[in-house]
Amino acid sequence: MTFDFEGIDAIINARSLAIVGASAKPFKFGSLFTAAQLAFGFRGPVYLVNPGEREILGQPCHSDLASLPEVPDLVYVTIPAHQSMEILRECARLRVKGVVILASGFREAGEKGSALEKEAVSIARRGGFRIVGPNCFGIYNPRNRLTLLPGHDFSGKVGDVAFISQSGGFSAHVGRMGGDLGIGFSAIVSYGNGADLDEIDLIRYFSRDPQTKIISGYLEGTRDGRELFRVLREAAAHKPVVIWKVGKTESSQRAAASHTGSLAGSSIIWESVFRQCGVIEVSGVDELCDVLLALKHVGRRPGKRILLAGGGGGLGAYAGDLAEAEGLRVPSLSGETASRLRGILDYPGAAVGNPLDIGTPLTHLPIFESAMREAAMDPSVDVLLFDLAINFAHGLFGNAGLEAAADILAGIREKTGKPVILVLYSRAIGVGDLGVEELARRIRDKLLAAGVLVYPSMARALRALALVNG
Amino acid sequence: MTFDFEGIDAIINARSLAIVGASAKPFKFGSLFTAAQLAFGFRGPVYLVNPGEREILGQPCHSDLASLPEVPDLVYVTIPAHQSMEILRECARLRVKGVVILASGFREAGEKGSALEKEAVSIARRGGFRIVGPNCFGIYNPRNRLTLLPGHDFSGKVGDVAFISQSGGFSAHVGRMGGDLGIGFSAIVSYGNGADLDEIDLIRYFSRDPQTKIISGYLEGTRDGRELFRVLREAAAHKPVVIWKVGKTESSQRAAASHTGSLAGSSIIWESVFRQCGVIEVSGVDELCDVLLALKHVGRRPGKRILLAGGGGGLGAYAGDLAEAEGLRVPSLSGETASRLRGILDYPGAAVGNPLDIGTPLTHLPIFESAMREAAMDPSVDVLLFDLAINFAHGLFGNAGLEAAADILAGIREKTGKPVILVLYSRAIGVGDLGVEELARRIRDKLLAAGVLVYPSMARALRALALVNG
Repeated sequence: MTFDFEGIDAIINARSLAIVGASAKPFKFGSLFTAAQLAFGFRGPVYLVNPGEREILGQPCHSDLASLPEVPDLVYVTIPAHQSMEILRECARLRVKGVVILASGFREAGEKGSALEKEAVSIARRGGFRIVGPNCFGIYNPRNRLTLLPGHDFSGKVGDVAFISQSGGFSAHVGRMGGDLGIGFSAIVSYGNGADLDEIDLIRYFSRDPQTKIISGYLEGTRDGRELFRVLREAAAHKPVVIWKVGKTESSQRAAASHTGSLAGSSIIWESVFRQCGVIEVSGVDELCDVLLALKHVGRRPGKRILLAGGGGGLGAYAGDLAEAEGLRVPSLSGETASRLRGILDYPGAAVGNPLDIGTPLTHLPIFESAMREAAMDPSVDVLLFDLAINFAHGLFGNAGLEAAADILAGIREKTGKPVILVLYSRAIGVGDLGVEELARRIRDKLLAAGVLVYPSMARALRALALVNG
Repeated sequence: MTFDFEGIDAIINARSLAIVGASAKPFKFGSLFTAAQLAFGFRGPVYLVNPGEREILGQPCHSDLASLPEVPDLVYVTIPAHQSMEILRECARLRVKGVVILASGFREAGEKGSALEKEAVSIARRGGFRIVGPNCFGIYNPRNRLTLLPGHDFSGKVGDVAFISQSGGFSAHVGRMGGDLGIGFSAIVSYGNGADLDEIDLIRYFSRDPQTKIISGYLEGTRDGRELFRVLREAAAHKPVVIWKVGKTESSQRAAASHTGSLAGSSIIWESVFRQCGVIEVSGVDELCDVLLALKHVGRRPGKRILLAGGGGGLGAYAGDLAEAEGLRVPSLSGETASRLRGILDYPGAAVGNPLDIGTPLTHLPIFESAMREAAMDPSVDVLLFDLAINFAHGLFGNAGLEAAADILAGIREKTGKPVILVLYSRAIGVGDLGVEELARRIRDKLLAAGVLVYPSMARALRALALVNG
């Protein structure tokens, strides 16, 4: 099908919505999605459709699509696969703009399912509407407050990151965690089998969507490798593109086939495609979010020369190994910076250099501030990283001291303009240690709001920095 | 010096303790260690020594070592490097058994410090006592309730894992986190520069210590590579040995030199030494603790054939890639198991195979129990892994449902005898999500107590399993 920006836009930014199979019965797609969508608060009418119900969660319920007061832009079909063809035919008659099919039991389920999927696509083509799915969680868009199947607790913040995913589970993970980390989304599209709208359409769409500045995706396979290559190259030429591709081994190809009916393809070809297009390749939900966070706060290619600071010399030897293994550089400080730092960190236990050991997990705050500012301002340093074991430092400095230390890092980020990373973690992980966990999350949120990157481990921080520099 | 088991044992299992430089002044080693040790409750007399104090934290303070009512087994010297020679000479005169020197400012600090360190060792040799350190956090031993410099909150549980470390910080991290994870320690020794007691003595000691069943360590370098090779080979022949070695790159060698004055050596040589000795090589505090946990609950070489189960097919494709990249196997299920599982998981969204997709994050508990038991009992499966996004499942099953699911996994571990791993994580990481975090920690603790391994990510679980199989 030819690419139609407006057609896709009308679905993602739908102004009215119908839920076919809406329900209040537990453990059904219809009930989970109805509850999620009503809780999230769609900015427009939501029509519930179920011939067997009069009212659901206090909302009136309609017997069929034809009896609605208007033709909805978008219809969520939450009933089982074999019952959905009838609904699709009605959607075609009514000329809706798009349909999301949540159910599985299509191409991924064998021959019979494949035939159903083909039929669904042919109904859509004739009826002039687009399909998202089947076998998916749908669309999350904070602008019109559409949400994924399980997305009642997603962030309402509008942002500029698009995420497309063949996995519903991963789209929910990225949406929820990304929201908690303040990564604002333009949209998330869980497109499952991609029977109609697929990775090629969606990447092309988000590449032109003015709201989207960063494009990311989880892929199991593609309909057309050559076309995907073109689309990725075009998109990555003017927006950062981050892709998580699975299905590189035999068992995971089996899993991809039974999940979304995808042919996964050879890993060497994929890696070379990504490299040629300038796509950042990631692995896993954590790494994907880590990279999105870095792109948001420090952008593409912030520089590879990192100053590793922290208290405790073991850290330095470990972090140095990791940084160099990631292709980052740990440059020596300039003589001037080193001599100024020796004047500031003039107590036993501190060791001036790169790595920079301040001797204790955190030192007196005026000393900490001067030392971090000197280090960040060294012309041979692109990025300042500070490692903080919060349970350690909390015993010495308390909540107020740690909040003040966070403010110091935020100030250095602002005044020097250089990227600052805090590696923030607690080694106190017992049930009784939730107070420290809460403090860590508060400090993380405060620093992210100030543009300071916060990661829970040295390995993840260095990997993310290496990837956005790649 | 010739190896003297009893001499080292008398220090690690010391029955009396003196703290020279005891203090209540904030931000001093003397005050931190005094507070930590008094809070932890040493099983024997603790003598505080400081000529300038009469009483510290309600305890009487002595003016010097000579005026104590007995000669202590072990003396912690918490005063600065240049003041400590006088104390060491007194220790020699009194014939104490061991001295821990916390201060830095020795070999790692250049020529003057090197001379001090040599002098300290020569006093110890003549006086017939051993030195731990300098530039270290000392000894943690839950049997006599000795603790590390910052170890007031360490576990009192006696166990069978020894950890030795050139880094004080990492010894504190491993002690605290290992304690929270229920890894019981026989002892942790932070030995810093290793001027006298070093990795060779300590590994030899723990290799013979009947309380210790697993030996682990963080190394920056070694005094004698040939001798270390012999000691590691001998130890690993009858106990699992887990080593984290840093200093493989130029910047980290610089850091190791300025941290403990160690020469780090070539990474290829180290890796081949570890391989030849059967040592498990790890990287980082998390990976070290992950491997210790696996050794404790499933031992060495539990088998590489893993069944990957969870809800959501994307998981399977991802986990399969990771497992095979780690050298694990994801075998097909036997025909009999597969057909029984198809009878149990007979709803849309589930996909029987390996990976095994139960279709939702967690399913009705009797179905969950039957499916997991069938899967674990398949003869082609060595290890059952289940992946659970707790924030997802919590919305559907609540606290009680999740606790019951955990009990089911514990029952399968017990009844089948097969290793069971739960990958347990929350994608709800906001400040407002601490309730889910608390539940996750409670479930983790319950399962670890039942011998079910719990890891916070698929990547860490698979890495740990691969390492103990290596």
